Amino acid sequence: MLVDRSVRQLLDAFAAPTPTPGGGSAAALTGALAAALLEMVASMPKTKNGTPEDRAALDAALPELKALRTALTGLVDRDSASYDAVVAAYKLPKTTDDEKAARKAAVREAMRGATDVPLETARASFAVPRFTQVIAKHGNPNAKSDASVAIGLAMQAAGGARANVEINADSVGDADYAAAVRGELERLTMETAMTLRTTMEELGWKGHQPPRS
Amino acid sequence: MLVDRSVRQLLDAFAAPTPTPGGGSAAALTGALAAALLEMVASMPKTKNGTPEDRAALDAALPELKALRTALTGLVDRDSASYDAVVAAYKLPKTTDDEKAARKAAVREAMRGATDVPLETARASFAVPRFTQVIAKHGNPNAKSDASVAIGLAMQAAGGARANVEINADSVGDADYAAAVRGELERLTMETAMTLRTTMEELGWKGHQPPRS
Repeated sequence: MLVDRSVRQLLDAFAAPTPTPGGGSAAALTGALAAALLEMVASMPKTKNGTPEDRAALDAALPELKALRTALTGLVDRDSASYDAVVAAYKLPKTTDDEKAARKAAVREAMRGATDVPLETARASFAVPRFTQVIAKHGNPNAKSDASVAIGLAMQAAGGARANVEINADSVGDADYAAAVRGELERLTMETAMTLRTTMEELGWKGHQPPRS
Repeated sequence: MLVDRSVRQLLDAFAAPTPTPGGGSAAALTGALAAALLEMVASMPKTKNGTPEDRAALDAALPELKALRTALTGLVDRDSASYDAVVAAYKLPKTTDDEKAARKAAVREAMRGATDVPLETARASFAVPRFTQVIAKHGNPNAKSDASVAIGLAMQAAGGARANVEINADSVGDADYAAAVRGELERLTMETAMTLRTTMEELGWKGHQPPRS
């Protein structure tokens, strides 16, 4: 699996002139990285006020963040596999009419996989920043730049996954499906951005200015 | 080194409740990932128009992108080392006045390292999206979602590195230095965002809507 390779080797694989691993896997990896950073802050012994309430709130967030990281780590490989299936479908024979019809159906089915998988990546990545509210309220204030980085990476992971959904959605050949996934992603983008405003103020952001010490 | 570990192990290291690796290393890794994605597009045999001009433009960008990836990969470990030095400086004895003065100087020096390193990460990450202009003009149009993801990741890597500069800059105890690095990052943020507008249109973005196939 890609995620069992060394970081250097995975970067080499991204840089290689083959379609996979590509942007979808990069988005999933970035989402996993964001979840891991929030796990770090949530599991630090130091909390905001040193109270049992802080500890309980952070402890409750931890398994959910870990589950998101696990899912996103798995999506690094799943995204590449889903696009490999698209490449394989395009390589099917297309001489006879039957072959053409079978190839068209196979491409559409593979494209649906290559849309559903980044959609999962987007959903999981959008779920990560929801926990920054808990981190900002109860977590170690010395780690607020880590939480800030995590928010940005998670939103970008979601945005990158969304770009992959957008690019593949029409090739599934199902307008209702394409409209539904686009609608869901637009809603998630807006909802998450709104939720984040308060959190970023709590972390010390002033508009677009990151927190200072 | 962190980047010689498997991807899973590195994510575990980020998730562990120790200060490093933290947001600065995550930013550097994300920047390296963005550079690698653009290398992929630049080195694909298929180009936009299949002309020698396309090939020459992409070939010229490739070594520069590779150099940025190498620098950013190195910065994953360098960022953690720079913050480990801050932690070590804080642990110096502070009983006598001499010890207090020596500790204060050591903390400031270490904080300067922990500001200079993410500053390098921000500079290198901001340099990555400049090549998307070449990619959008000459690269394989099938890879436009990869280029879009790369832009987003590079900007977020730069933003994350900037958050680390902001959080540490004042602890260096040199107001001129802090103002200079903040000014440079503000300028780089604006300049890069302006440059990217045209590129994103060429890649098929409509405002905040990612390109469709």
